[in-house]
Amino acid sequence: MMRQLLTLFVILPVLLLWQNSLAEGCPADNNTVRGTGDLGIVIERASGSVQIIETSHNTSLGRVEGLGDLSHASAVYSRDERYAYVFGRDGGLSKIDILNKKLVKRILQSGNSIGGAISQDGRLVAVSNYTPGGVKIFDADSLELVANIPATYGNHLQRSKVIGLVDAPGRKFVFSLWDAGEIWVADLSSPGNPTITKFKDIGKNPYDGLITPDGRYYIAGLFGEDGMALLDLWHLDAGVKRILDHYGKGEQKLPVFKMPHLEGWAIAGNLAFVPAVGRHEVLVIDMLDWSEAGRIKVHGQPVFVMARPDGRHVWVNFAVPDNDTLQVIDSQSLQIIKTLTPGKGVLHMEFEPRGEQVWASVRDEDRLAVFDTETFEQLNTLEAQKPSGIFFTSRAHRTGL
Amino acid sequence: MMRQLLTLFVILPVLLLWQNSLAEGCPADNNTVRGTGDLGIVIERASGSVQIIETSHNTSLGRVEGLGDLSHASAVYSRDERYAYVFGRDGGLSKIDILNKKLVKRILQSGNSIGGAISQDGRLVAVSNYTPGGVKIFDADSLELVANIPATYGNHLQRSKVIGLVDAPGRKFVFSLWDAGEIWVADLSSPGNPTITKFKDIGKNPYDGLITPDGRYYIAGLFGEDGMALLDLWHLDAGVKRILDHYGKGEQKLPVFKMPHLEGWAIAGNLAFVPAVGRHEVLVIDMLDWSEAGRIKVHGQPVFVMARPDGRHVWVNFAVPDNDTLQVIDSQSLQIIKTLTPGKGVLHMEFEPRGEQVWASVRDEDRLAVFDTETFEQLNTLEAQKPSGIFFTSRAHRTGL
Repeated sequence: MMRQLLTLFVILPVLLLWQNSLAEGCPADNNTVRGTGDLGIVIERASGSVQIIETSHNTSLGRVEGLGDLSHASAVYSRDERYAYVFGRDGGLSKIDILNKKLVKRILQSGNSIGGAISQDGRLVAVSNYTPGGVKIFDADSLELVANIPATYGNHLQRSKVIGLVDAPGRKFVFSLWDAGEIWVADLSSPGNPTITKFKDIGKNPYDGLITPDGRYYIAGLFGEDGMALLDLWHLDAGVKRILDHYGKGEQKLPVFKMPHLEGWAIAGNLAFVPAVGRHEVLVIDMLDWSEAGRIKVHGQPVFVMARPDGRHVWVNFAVPDNDTLQVIDSQSLQIIKTLTPGKGVLHMEFEPRGEQVWASVRDEDRLAVFDTETFEQLNTLEAQKPSGIFFTSRAHRTGL
Repeated sequence: MMRQLLTLFVILPVLLLWQNSLAEGCPADNNTVRGTGDLGIVIERASGSVQIIETSHNTSLGRVEGLGDLSHASAVYSRDERYAYVFGRDGGLSKIDILNKKLVKRILQSGNSIGGAISQDGRLVAVSNYTPGGVKIFDADSLELVANIPATYGNHLQRSKVIGLVDAPGRKFVFSLWDAGEIWVADLSSPGNPTITKFKDIGKNPYDGLITPDGRYYIAGLFGEDGMALLDLWHLDAGVKRILDHYGKGEQKLPVFKMPHLEGWAIAGNLAFVPAVGRHEVLVIDMLDWSEAGRIKVHGQPVFVMARPDGRHVWVNFAVPDNDTLQVIDSQSLQIIKTLTPGKGVLHMEFEPRGEQVWASVRDEDRLAVFDTETFEQLNTLEAQKPSGIFFTSRAHRTGL
């Protein structure tokens, strides 16, 4: 009997070791075996964390912390929709495994940065930096530095802040130089050795840029003067054109409480919907000739102007003091068909991939609100810590997001 | 000593059972813990199987068998991009878990069917049936029948074959009745009790239909006469219009080796590219007024005419005897810029979500060919058993695919 017990004491530890080794082969929990097409992250700026959510049942799956300063943070996704790359304001670039809810790697790649992009093929992640001004390109798997593009200009002693960085078809990145008033197109076909095409004198202080969903037109908004700079990436030789001379603050320099975002440009058919600068207006642009096709009076200074994926409605949020409100514009009648007041601090919206629901961040109420885009009924509200940007994995399949 | 051995014999089975129970808690292999945004399936029609592939490294992940008659089969995806719904010719509807490479459920829902769709919210799967003619709607989770829409017409004793079934925003499905010459819009807002809007006398023998990527326009091609039937889903009251009176076989009734597919309609800016019927031509349509904007001479009778996601190039494959060839059209110059001959039996193409590569089925060589869409270089070739349709998970996020 004693002997049998001894044998057990010998075998038991072996047995436990074996169990552990098997257990390590397993995912942390079975939620890790799931599709990733209905996942997303929400930036929680105050706490330097992101919340991972899913849109099939509108629930929270967890939180990843330790991401540094996430004010004005944005994110892109790996081509398999498993990893989120989060661009922090402090120069931090974080790679998050949203299946295992783990921070995979975090690097501090500059002193101050503003957004990034992922290449068409998903191999390269680019970050646009203020200090030192330029763009850094990283391997999407390892976050190893692949290329460094300092935004030098003039006598080449100065470096410009870089803004409006987007990906374009063919392993290209396009961005603007705030101080220099230039647009650069970087071709990363041979990653270590980028080819840069520079367009100078495009206008004073480009403050943000966007690329049309087809990846053809890059447009930079100007802070230093009215109008916008347009570059047709299919015809680089044609150079940069000025469009919308009346777009901007105008002569009597209006106070601007928050510069509008251009990423959220709404496109419905041939019409684009743009937040006016300073004015309580949404501008309508005919993309066939880039002329102004109308102005829609709205509740406040628009920040994001976003089309429902089918283009039939355009949703708008506003700068302080009107940031408790959302308005919905009919893209045909150009009328406001709905005004919602989700609560104080509506900072961002994200449509579900096919548009049946939309998520909104209500920062000052520490929650997310989900709306049915047909009935405008609020379907869900989820707790979140000072939420700002919302980013769904379906962005992985799109250009310029 | 003998006693210790005995003890081992007692403990060993327990130990093995334990190992198994732990192992079952794990995924079959660690490939099941992965993102699903870069996955896809390939229909292997002769063997009634689908091959599961991934587009990040262009490899095969496995095969699922026992899917019945897959001639002319197509597939849609669950909103989380984990499950594929495969529509077989024999009325079979199969739900496949592409992570675990398992057939989850298969039902025989009719005697003869042709394609299906999944609702905007991913809750409902619809199948269009020849015999008995109609549409059946199933719960996407359980494949339980939710609604049955028999395609009765005339004296209501006859039932029509149903074709051109697509999903539309707002839990709607749109389809056409081959024998009746009607287009029906089914609203599944209350799933058990669909509301049907019928449009009669839309033209003789609609043979296929498509919906524009924004989900606004439904277009049916007519086999019994020239022209196409156009329905603006934003203005159902305006009814069905006839467009492209010259679209079709014309007076001198050309032999048609294979009816072209409309699903693959290419849209670039305002231009749509359509396979001509019988003729060696691709038609160009100005979507602003639905008028013919040109005809492009091509190598044979076009079958699929598909735009690269950025709309800059349009890829075309052909009916026998020219089905060994692919041609690429520049959407601006309307010129053919490349002719490829991947091999005999090029049945289908699928672009990677952001368009940098395209996959082609080369049926008679039992392989898949992957091309770089910029250099046109063949990057990979993969073994496949008589491959036909190729469907990537990114379709989950799109309307009408």
